[in-house]
Amino acid sequence: MELWYTENHTDNVRFSMKVKKQLYSHKSPFQQIDIFETEEFGKLLTIDGLVMITEKDEFIYHDMIVHVPMATNMDIKNVLVIGAGDGGTVRELTRYKTIEKIDMVEIDELVVKACKKYIPQTASKLDDKRVNLYFEDGIKFVEGKENMYDLIIVDSTDPIGPGEGLFTNEFYNNCFKALTEKGILVNQNESPYYDRDAKEMIRAHKKIKNIFPICEAYQYNIPTYPSGHWLFGFASKKLHPVKDLDKDKWNSLGLKTKYYNTDIHVGSFMLPTYVKDMFKNGIK
Amino acid sequence: MELWYTENHTDNVRFSMKVKKQLYSHKSPFQQIDIFETEEFGKLLTIDGLVMITEKDEFIYHDMIVHVPMATNMDIKNVLVIGAGDGGTVRELTRYKTIEKIDMVEIDELVVKACKKYIPQTASKLDDKRVNLYFEDGIKFVEGKENMYDLIIVDSTDPIGPGEGLFTNEFYNNCFKALTEKGILVNQNESPYYDRDAKEMIRAHKKIKNIFPICEAYQYNIPTYPSGHWLFGFASKKLHPVKDLDKDKWNSLGLKTKYYNTDIHVGSFMLPTYVKDMFKNGIK
Repeated sequence: MELWYTENHTDNVRFSMKVKKQLYSHKSPFQQIDIFETEEFGKLLTIDGLVMITEKDEFIYHDMIVHVPMATNMDIKNVLVIGAGDGGTVRELTRYKTIEKIDMVEIDELVVKACKKYIPQTASKLDDKRVNLYFEDGIKFVEGKENMYDLIIVDSTDPIGPGEGLFTNEFYNNCFKALTEKGILVNQNESPYYDRDAKEMIRAHKKIKNIFPICEAYQYNIPTYPSGHWLFGFASKKLHPVKDLDKDKWNSLGLKTKYYNTDIHVGSFMLPTYVKDMFKNGIK
Repeated sequence: MELWYTENHTDNVRFSMKVKKQLYSHKSPFQQIDIFETEEFGKLLTIDGLVMITEKDEFIYHDMIVHVPMATNMDIKNVLVIGAGDGGTVRELTRYKTIEKIDMVEIDELVVKACKKYIPQTASKLDDKRVNLYFEDGIKFVEGKENMYDLIIVDSTDPIGPGEGLFTNEFYNNCFKALTEKGILVNQNESPYYDRDAKEMIRAHKKIKNIFPICEAYQYNIPTYPSGHWLFGFASKKLHPVKDLDKDKWNSLGLKTKYYNTDIHVGSFMLPTYVKDMFKNGIK
């Protein structure tokens, strides 16, 4: 018998991973959660049938979502993480001794429970004493918050289903207010390659650009996501992710990272021409 | 009826594209050549069952294999291209008025014939009068050549089958001799992500490093190749691909490119830590 997990990247493109066995399957009030043991990628977490993380390549995603903003402002003390139930984002954040508080708001407690049990590789640091876990709607959580966080990371699913409200003007406005003077917002910004993903990428970018004085995007290569070519959005009130990077200072921390380094930090903001054009002119 | 082309990226990973129809299928004396019309990627050329190019993303591959060396040395006049039967590399080269001669050596005439008929998007410039087509073994072609080419591009298949000899010390030595004083060698350098590809990547890099004073690698994202994360090798006798890049000079040419720009040129040499470590220490 052979068991394969297959994801449709578009109606006409499929990506499949050989599965040793299914470890977990549960329908929460919000979504369908599954965990598989795969041959190539170790554990695989899917939500509503879409890859969230695999043990083999989650380091790429979590390195880039955390270390890029942290190296841009090394005085970050208070962080809000929205989504990120697998725990990988928090794991990377807890490596900074300078961080005092991490509020993590995940709408779906079951994701956290399942990852704690089956994917300790990402979930092991959720018990760090600086971490406050809120099982609430991140959209409501930021409402009315003012000048509280130096960094907000929106580590969300795609803008379909429970993640949808995390891609609205209102939400981005509330994030702006919740951020301190040098505040940074990093968000999952989809992919430029397939039209459907690219449309969402541009929509999110445009909305954020209207609110934040600095709005950039940076790329990374993650093999288990559609096309492998993905972006994070970097928005901030004051700091520029490349001009304000102090390479020596970050390197003096001595953090070992498998994907991130201060060179690729800079390189990741250098985007292909067609991606720059999309941000400027939309999709033709 | 549904027709799908499926490639095994490893024994445990599959990538599939929906096919409208098969346009061409022929076994040459060297290899199995197929061309499909796909739903998502336009025409697809496969050799021995592996993706060579698709119309949707070949611009990424050809931009990066050609414009990176051309922008590093804008005095390049004589070019040798080995492989590249689809014609895409020559198409990009012919856009430079400063190039006087392009010798293209493709072992398999049938690849060129098939691409001329079915994939004019890449093959249309093979009739440029500066292009000399040789249907010969590239390995033998470079033997004994001295001080003839400013740039050699090895646009090969993987180091299995007819492409194997293009990944040997002897071949790289002959390329070194065939190059002029400021000569540059660019070669297909596989992928860091899956072990099998990474081993070949390291082997090729080590051999070239022993011969050329300057030996670097640069990355690009091509969604239809295994993992989407691929590298080219950049080796040269004198010029450094980043330090010797004259951005203004290249930009003054006004060439429109969809992937390449002088920023991503620089960014593409900034590699993830795990890739740098592999080049330094091999695979653990």
